Amino acid sequence: MGASIEKIEVRRFALPLAEVLVDASHGAHTHFELITATVTTSDGVAGTGYSYTGGIGGHAIAAMLEHDLAPFLLGRDAEPVEELNEAMARYLHYVGRGGIASFAISAIDIALWDIRGKARGEPLWRMAGGAGRGCRAYRGGIDLNFPLPRLLDSVRGYLAAGFRGVKIKVGRPTLAEDLERVAAVRDMIGPDVAFMVDANYAFDVEQAIAAARAFAPHDITWFEEPTIPDDWLGYARIAEEGGLPLAMGENLHTIHEFEHALRWARLSYLQPDASNCGGITGWLAAARAGQAAGLQVSSHGMQELHVSLVSALDPQGWIEVHSFPIDEYTTRPLVMENGRAVAPDTPGTGVEFNWEKLEAAHDSGT
Amino acid sequence: MGASIEKIEVRRFALPLAEVLVDASHGAHTHFELITATVTTSDGVAGTGYSYTGGIGGHAIAAMLEHDLAPFLLGRDAEPVEELNEAMARYLHYVGRGGIASFAISAIDIALWDIRGKARGEPLWRMAGGAGRGCRAYRGGIDLNFPLPRLLDSVRGYLAAGFRGVKIKVGRPTLAEDLERVAAVRDMIGPDVAFMVDANYAFDVEQAIAAARAFAPHDITWFEEPTIPDDWLGYARIAEEGGLPLAMGENLHTIHEFEHALRWARLSYLQPDASNCGGITGWLAAARAGQAAGLQVSSHGMQELHVSLVSALDPQGWIEVHSFPIDEYTTRPLVMENGRAVAPDTPGTGVEFNWEKLEAAHDSGT
Ligand SMILES: [Mg+2]
Ligand SMILES: [Mg+2]
Repeated sequence: MGASIEKIEVRRFALPLAEVLVDASHGAHTHFELITATVTTSDGVAGTGYSYTGGIGGHAIAAMLEHDLAPFLLGRDAEPVEELNEAMARYLHYVGRGGIASFAISAIDIALWDIRGKARGEPLWRMAGGAGRGCRAYRGGIDLNFPLPRLLDSVRGYLAAGFRGVKIKVGRPTLAEDLERVAAVRDMIGPDVAFMVDANYAFDVEQAIAAARAFAPHDITWFEEPTIPDDWLGYARIAEEGGLPLAMGENLHTIHEFEHALRWARLSYLQPDASNCGGITGWLAAARAGQAAGLQVSSHGMQELHVSLVSALDPQGWIEVHSFPIDEYTTRPLVMENGRAVAPDTPGTGVEFNWEKLEAAHDSGT
Repeated sequence: MGASIEKIEVRRFALPLAEVLVDASHGAHTHFELITATVTTSDGVAGTGYSYTGGIGGHAIAAMLEHDLAPFLLGRDAEPVEELNEAMARYLHYVGRGGIASFAISAIDIALWDIRGKARGEPLWRMAGGAGRGCRAYRGGIDLNFPLPRLLDSVRGYLAAGFRGVKIKVGRPTLAEDLERVAAVRDMIGPDVAFMVDANYAFDVEQAIAAARAFAPHDITWFEEPTIPDDWLGYARIAEEGGLPLAMGENLHTIHEFEHALRWARLSYLQPDASNCGGITGWLAAARAGQAAGLQVSSHGMQELHVSLVSALDPQGWIEVHSFPIDEYTTRPLVMENGRAVAPDTPGTGVEFNWEKLEAAHDSGT
């Protein structure tokens, strides 16, 4: 047996966004929540994992970490991360199988991978497969409420920052409005920049088919979450009748959900998020299942961590550079070189938080 | 607009069990948790809803009720319960779609139905459809660790208490042991008592098929959760090749999960639990879907509430009289007459807690 888990410190931060961000389903975001779990072993090695939300549920994640997972884990060997991940899922099963439990397990799992990497002297991109240290990165906007000129300004900013791929939200009150925005963005970015659209499941299946057909002439890399993430057969119809490649993953929280979606939804891109699908262990399992099904595996959110995971894959999808800037609260905000993201090469996950900056930014009123 | 939601009081109790109860997947239960939400309207009407767990996750449920749902609900009209239920699910979507969120929504939803019934002067069995005031009730044991003589004593006690249906746990280390227990119980209860078995998803598909075939000669009403609740196609194979009617529901938390199971799993009995599938609104939606698919709709847990829901259906399944005795902490523990359970006829849910008894029993160390 290796070092045992001696201490688990849980913290929750409510971090204000620079401006209010709106998508088609989650309303106005004024804050995002960051929930951290710092695990210390009997050898004195500390690893930090984390999850995040759009501002809702963070207290429940922290409560589950403190009251359920910490007592369950204290004293156990920290090294067999995959076994501990499965044991946590089994322990929480009755109140789990997704939802808050997946977020809480994720935070612990990431902390344990951080410890594993530090103990072995290995960076995450190597532990995760090691195919490469860099990957494509696109900038994902939460911009549904931006008037068109503002939207174009925003996308222009992404290009100026070096991105070769951009994503905008769709789901405005009429398809004509969405189409105008899609056409204007493609017109501005030209033919060589990858362009994705994300409906945050705002459409029903018929609306999504109509939208896909309307967007198709504008060379769309993927149509993300056209309808509710539970309607896998609906996704299959949208793929067949709409003619655009489909993407999903941010709302799939267990390997079973990924397997169902891969079996039935006719997806082209998978976008697991290690903050809510069981951490790095869950992300790698979803990625393996996606690659076995012939999909390109990308990521949702927390670019500072996913850069190591997507880079490690062959073939590679894209990392999303998300509008919740977790990386700005770390000692190494995302590094881009020639339009590609570069993974940290330090042992562990390479994500070290700037605790003082987090404390200063935390809005204790939420 | 009717009366608005003025106050929401959330409480959590850890209630010790009279003895340690074991099933095939959840280990040893020493306590169960009861999480209550008391909603008071601007008219001064108070309704109480609740959820429960096997001892894990209650703090997270309470945190979500306090920090997420209460602020979201305060000031809203209390009457359109179905709309509020959908609004809560939408609000919690990113951290929801099952898990803790479903438990938290359930507690609020039940409180709102309690208020609706009190405001209208109607008991739940009428509001839920009104087909009848009574239903069949079986006693479900959590008895996997009982040696055979003890198991038989326990089942004898159920018969003495007037039950015409009994359920035991299966999933002992060998099928031979399970089969010995199943045969001995059927032998003791005779041919006229309904007999169910519950594996708590301990088997893989092949094991479950073998078990179903072995149990079949003993006239088993249903085989509950033979394998993990996510493997719907596995359930279909077990139904076809094992030859026993299958039951599930306690681990299905959204209407989408029920729809998937109904589409693919070849179930015969559906067992939604209003404490974790979106409350009474969620239970009725699942029941409608189950009845439309030709299944018998039963219930899992909290007999003091489900007696009103199952009684209201036509045709009716069974209520489970569960080993977590929530009803003993109410002013009207489950009433049985001639082997059938009888629903309360008082306005609201008819479930009023004995708060002093709860406080006295609460184990603050957990
Ligand atoms: Mg998205
Ligand atoms: Mg059961």
